[in-house]
Amino acid sequence: MIVIMKPGAAEESVKAVISYIESNGLTAHLSQGKEVTIIGVVGDKTRLSTENLTVYKDVDRIVPVTESYKLANKKFHPEPTRVKAGNVVIGPDTMTIMAGPCAVETEEQLMCIARAVKDAGASILRGGAYKPRTSPYSFQGLEEEGLRYMKRAGEETGLATICEVVSLDAIEAAVKYVDMIQIGARNMQNFILLREAGRSGLPVLLKRGLCATIDEWLNAAEYIMSEGNPNVVLCERGIRTFETATRNTLDISAVPVMKEKTHLPIIVDPSHSTGSYKYVPSMAKAAVACGADGLMIEVHNDPAHALSDGPQSLTFAHFDQLTRELAPFCSLAGRSFQIKSEGKA
Amino acid sequence: MIVIMKPGAAEESVKAVISYIESNGLTAHLSQGKEVTIIGVVGDKTRLSTENLTVYKDVDRIVPVTESYKLANKKFHPEPTRVKAGNVVIGPDTMTIMAGPCAVETEEQLMCIARAVKDAGASILRGGAYKPRTSPYSFQGLEEEGLRYMKRAGEETGLATICEVVSLDAIEAAVKYVDMIQIGARNMQNFILLREAGRSGLPVLLKRGLCATIDEWLNAAEYIMSEGNPNVVLCERGIRTFETATRNTLDISAVPVMKEKTHLPIIVDPSHSTGSYKYVPSMAKAAVACGADGLMIEVHNDPAHALSDGPQSLTFAHFDQLTRELAPFCSLAGRSFQIKSEGKA
Amino acid sequence: MIVIMKPGAAEESVKAVISYIESNGLTAHLSQGKEVTIIGVVGDKTRLSTENLTVYKDVDRIVPVTESYKLANKKFHPEPTRVKAGNVVIGPDTMTIMAGPCAVETEEQLMCIARAVKDAGASILRGGAYKPRTSPYSFQGLEEEGLRYMKRAGEETGLATICEVVSLDAIEAAVKYVDMIQIGARNMQNFILLREAGRSGLPVLLKRGLCATIDEWLNAAEYIMSEGNPNVVLCERGIRTFETATRNTLDISAVPVMKEKTHLPIIVDPSHSTGSYKYVPSMAKAAVACGADGLMIEVHNDPAHALSDGPQSLTFAHFDQLTRELAPFCSLAGRSFQIKSEGKA
Amino acid sequence: MIVIMKPGAAEESVKAVISYIESNGLTAHLSQGKEVTIIGVVGDKTRLSTENLTVYKDVDRIVPVTESYKLANKKFHPEPTRVKAGNVVIGPDTMTIMAGPCAVETEEQLMCIARAVKDAGASILRGGAYKPRTSPYSFQGLEEEGLRYMKRAGEETGLATICEVVSLDAIEAAVKYVDMIQIGARNMQNFILLREAGRSGLPVLLKRGLCATIDEWLNAAEYIMSEGNPNVVLCERGIRTFETATRNTLDISAVPVMKEKTHLPIIVDPSHSTGSYKYVPSMAKAAVACGADGLMIEVHNDPAHALSDGPQSLTFAHFDQLTRELAPFCSLAGRSFQIKSEGKA
Repeated sequence: MIVIMKPGAAEESVKAVISYIESNGLTAHLSQGKEVTIIGVVGDKTRLSTENLTVYKDVDRIVPVTESYKLANKKFHPEPTRVKAGNVVIGPDTMTIMAGPCAVETEEQLMCIARAVKDAGASILRGGAYKPRTSPYSFQGLEEEGLRYMKRAGEETGLATICEVVSLDAIEAAVKYVDMIQIGARNMQNFILLREAGRSGLPVLLKRGLCATIDEWLNAAEYIMSEGNPNVVLCERGIRTFETATRNTLDISAVPVMKEKTHLPIIVDPSHSTGSYKYVPSMAKAAVACGADGLMIEVHNDPAHALSDGPQSLTFAHFDQLTRELAPFCSLAGRSFQIKSEGKA
Repeated sequence: MIVIMKPGAAEESVKAVISYIESNGLTAHLSQGKEVTIIGVVGDKTRLSTENLTVYKDVDRIVPVTESYKLANKKFHPEPTRVKAGNVVIGPDTMTIMAGPCAVETEEQLMCIARAVKDAGASILRGGAYKPRTSPYSFQGLEEEGLRYMKRAGEETGLATICEVVSLDAIEAAVKYVDMIQIGARNMQNFILLREAGRSGLPVLLKRGLCATIDEWLNAAEYIMSEGNPNVVLCERGIRTFETATRNTLDISAVPVMKEKTHLPIIVDPSHSTGSYKYVPSMAKAAVACGADGLMIEVHNDPAHALSDGPQSLTFAHFDQLTRELAPFCSLAGRSFQIKSEGKA
Repeated sequence: MIVIMKPGAAEESVKAVISYIESNGLTAHLSQGKEVTIIGVVGDKTRLSTENLTVYKDVDRIVPVTESYKLANKKFHPEPTRVKAGNVVIGPDTMTIMAGPCAVETEEQLMCIARAVKDAGASILRGGAYKPRTSPYSFQGLEEEGLRYMKRAGEETGLATICEVVSLDAIEAAVKYVDMIQIGARNMQNFILLREAGRSGLPVLLKRGLCATIDEWLNAAEYIMSEGNPNVVLCERGIRTFETATRNTLDISAVPVMKEKTHLPIIVDPSHSTGSYKYVPSMAKAAVACGADGLMIEVHNDPAHALSDGPQSLTFAHFDQLTRELAPFCSLAGRSFQIKSEGKA
Repeated sequence: MIVIMKPGAAEESVKAVISYIESNGLTAHLSQGKEVTIIGVVGDKTRLSTENLTVYKDVDRIVPVTESYKLANKKFHPEPTRVKAGNVVIGPDTMTIMAGPCAVETEEQLMCIARAVKDAGASILRGGAYKPRTSPYSFQGLEEEGLRYMKRAGEETGLATICEVVSLDAIEAAVKYVDMIQIGARNMQNFILLREAGRSGLPVLLKRGLCATIDEWLNAAEYIMSEGNPNVVLCERGIRTFETATRNTLDISAVPVMKEKTHLPIIVDPSHSTGSYKYVPSMAKAAVACGADGLMIEVHNDPAHALSDGPQSLTFAHFDQLTRELAPFCSLAGRSFQIKSEGKA
């Protein structure tokens, strides 16, 4: 951490800052230039609330030098992490496609979607049993009943399964039924939920909050990891900007930025970020081309009658066409990807 | 709700939309112009997932006509609501100042701050016992112990008390100790927490999420109210924008916008929105001048050693000066506000 | 400027950076900590393109220490500047209200508005003769004819006058007719126009760009001032954010931030920032309360038939009521403000 | 256009709106539902300032139905436009790479870069002669001298050439020397410049403003086209958001959105959007994969000593590697792309 003093800072002001630093068991390195005086702080910064230094007289600002996240930081773990969900490995060699309905509606619906997405190459079945909805009057999910359907669909098709959790109760239930849990965008800084997800023993997909910075997102991963759970996968799903032509703005550059900052896998959700099925194929290709480790795509047997997020869901035919088009992009990106139905031919 | 068809939409496309609307028990009003065809939908819209209509052929877009929040909507409750927290009434006639430390640190600290803010005119003591922090390695609060100190400080000074809650456990504890609970910005769409706050019986201060629209914010209030709790106060605390000169951007126009859309009181938090004690006084005055029903201000006995948010905390002297300067603005705004220490003179 | 090296930066990397700095005639101050190495750069930084240092091996990032704007910087000119437009002084002692139509439409319209705003207390008449419009098919202004009307309206009422300029030709014309020119939000970084405004000899109102940071805005002022024109007034008129309840988001905290960073006056435009006449009065009061030096408000004799921006224009009655309500806020803020018609009573 | 009245709007209010519409020579279609009354407006909307209707009593809001841009609108020109710059065709069948330095510095520098980018597969040479810079004290370009170097570099290598223009003078000069002109992000709504670019006869690359919506961007294109110049290419170069890990946020979904809304070609600039050479290759691949018609990439012989934008410039080696990696992505995307140096082997 560096403290930058204002031009012409009084000597007593500089001394007061140094004294504060040293009284907290840290070391201060003074560097006096013609224009400005700079004080470097060396030692265990968790011992002082560094932002407080800005209230000292003549302090211009504080510049952090090291990141607050450690376990998620690539600097200390240069090798890419491979996360296992059921029998699926998410990491640098594979293209993992998670697909399924936004919300689990009935057992028949889920089973039919599970078979279709498996045939088209998905390896993880997604399906929402607990739905966080903007309005209290919208459909809120089948809850534990929905998890039970997920388990059966996973058993029958051989797909791994993932469900969003929104509460400690939901985590407790999910542990019994699914292979991976998801923390949604709205809960990215629900720290109680993050800690409990860390303790669950299950791998966690952590979606980016709509207005979360890259740093906040990695600190949220750190909450999960600091509970002893290293199996975190990040999911870029669009941020909120002024542009309204798409539901959110897919921050595609988050993919290479994350590859530089962390060893955790990162996948992209083109469905929620764009909000329209029309833009899903092009965004899925962009994600594969720029190095994403996977995709999360909403697929529905009948989008016009979906109970949630119909407009962004692909039909079976569209999803099948998309994975066929994606396959050569996966090869180019150096990732194995297998359309299951091809083996049958 | 209105469905706007694309120019030159086929007759079958129009029929398909009408048929979908009617099959959901609603009525369709067709209006065919030269350029475009428009279909109005009349009836109970909670019966269909209206957004799905966008997947129908030749549909250009859907325009909602009515708001999804009802209980919070001024259209149905034109009179301003007065919310009572302990013996304090938050509403159109008074200026309610909530003040106190970001985090409760020790009983002595809290007691000394409580006395100071009371003398300067605050009527509600704020203090965080459960701190949601970006990094898992930052101070997370004293939890129930902190609540106990709040209760004692309230009893001794006669101030009403408010604490942020971050989990169902925290709500359960808060009910025993404080007069009002707060849902923080990061939990504004933690719907499980909102519902439980609604069931708690306590008045709720609902902070706006950093990237929440006015509509999402009112829908979050609706979650609390739909559990039978009408005592919700809104708190504008800054939104996230591209500007970094302040920590967040205080959306001051949210005050008159809310006065138009809802009957609930709205207060402003100049401390979190700006992130700097230097900007708190001017923003507090702006809030009073434009019609806010109250303020939430961070005050600390020793900002340089605060365990959280020191840079934005006012000292006792600054807070005292601020309330003296605010008093005539409150009069101009037609609101009663009493500096307690004045009575002593 | 400070160069922060990556943890574990190689010695040669550090040497290369130092060598680059010194080869540009600057001095490097090395400070090696346990975690990171920091290099301070001292001397005339305009001599090197400092951002280039980020391409050097093992450089983590560059932290600027001094601002790039000098003439606009309060550090070097602590006293507040007073800008004179005609016989009106904009500065710390007065409340200057600029009012008038968005677009000049006819001479009669302008004259009638000029009289009304003067009676209500405005001291500067605004009116657009060159209108930058989003669509090429919208009304683009009366151009020089409009300027002529402005001159006459100013002469008759004694009001000073201000017009937006959008081109070098417009500046040339404006010099002949009005007392002050305005650079609009869309041209805030039209550097050719800024330089020419600087050379015009007229005082300049510089509106903030919709997505301009405070720093970019001050650098734009620097362009004008570096041509020898110190008479610049800043105008906050709302920034673009995700919120759509108002046309833009009034960044009210820009007022105290500017008071800290620059000696130039700052005024607020509540009309363009909110986009609705309903929100203008409350935002005008907020601006006065927090320290603004003036207001720019759109007033129209018949908003429903205005050729531009009708929805945000006040009627004469509304404007008259607003200035009466504003007067005591001006007193509280320590600023002289006189409603002309009061003298008649 | 549709006018939505407030619930319970008075009959006279509805009549007043209809009367206003009809007095402007348009037709009103009334549709009265139980909840709300809706009025459709049919006819030539350029005849009234439709937004003014919001000031009428009981009007809730106005919903535009048709876009204000016509010439750029795909609805009226479904076939993709091919734009010719020199002998290069930008359109749906090819991958056009524009490459070169941010700023033209010397003739030798430019010539050496021109040869390198041509060998690596670029077909258009970019180079800034007029540099719009945030600070007036930064390097502002060689102006006409720089254009002369561009012409020579084009003649020697056979590359087409493109330069940014920032003023009417610059356009006048550019016409003599280069094959295509560029309107930069900061000038996207400099309507005077847009019109003049339209009259220049040269094809125009129109960069998106940092906070321009898709609709504003297309309206800016309409300004150019309405002067009789159909040769406009759009360039997505990143928008301003809250995220600071990259200089701007590349709005990659603008590519498929534009493919749906307009017939004009769209290219992507991964250099300015990310601000770092490290992210350029992955973003270039993403752009090709999702359907972009071209790329604009900054390349410099010595990024560490570039006079502008060094951190985002690729070296010759990096650019050469990038185009080799891009070639198979171009094939997959169905676009012809030829690395010139391959022919030599």
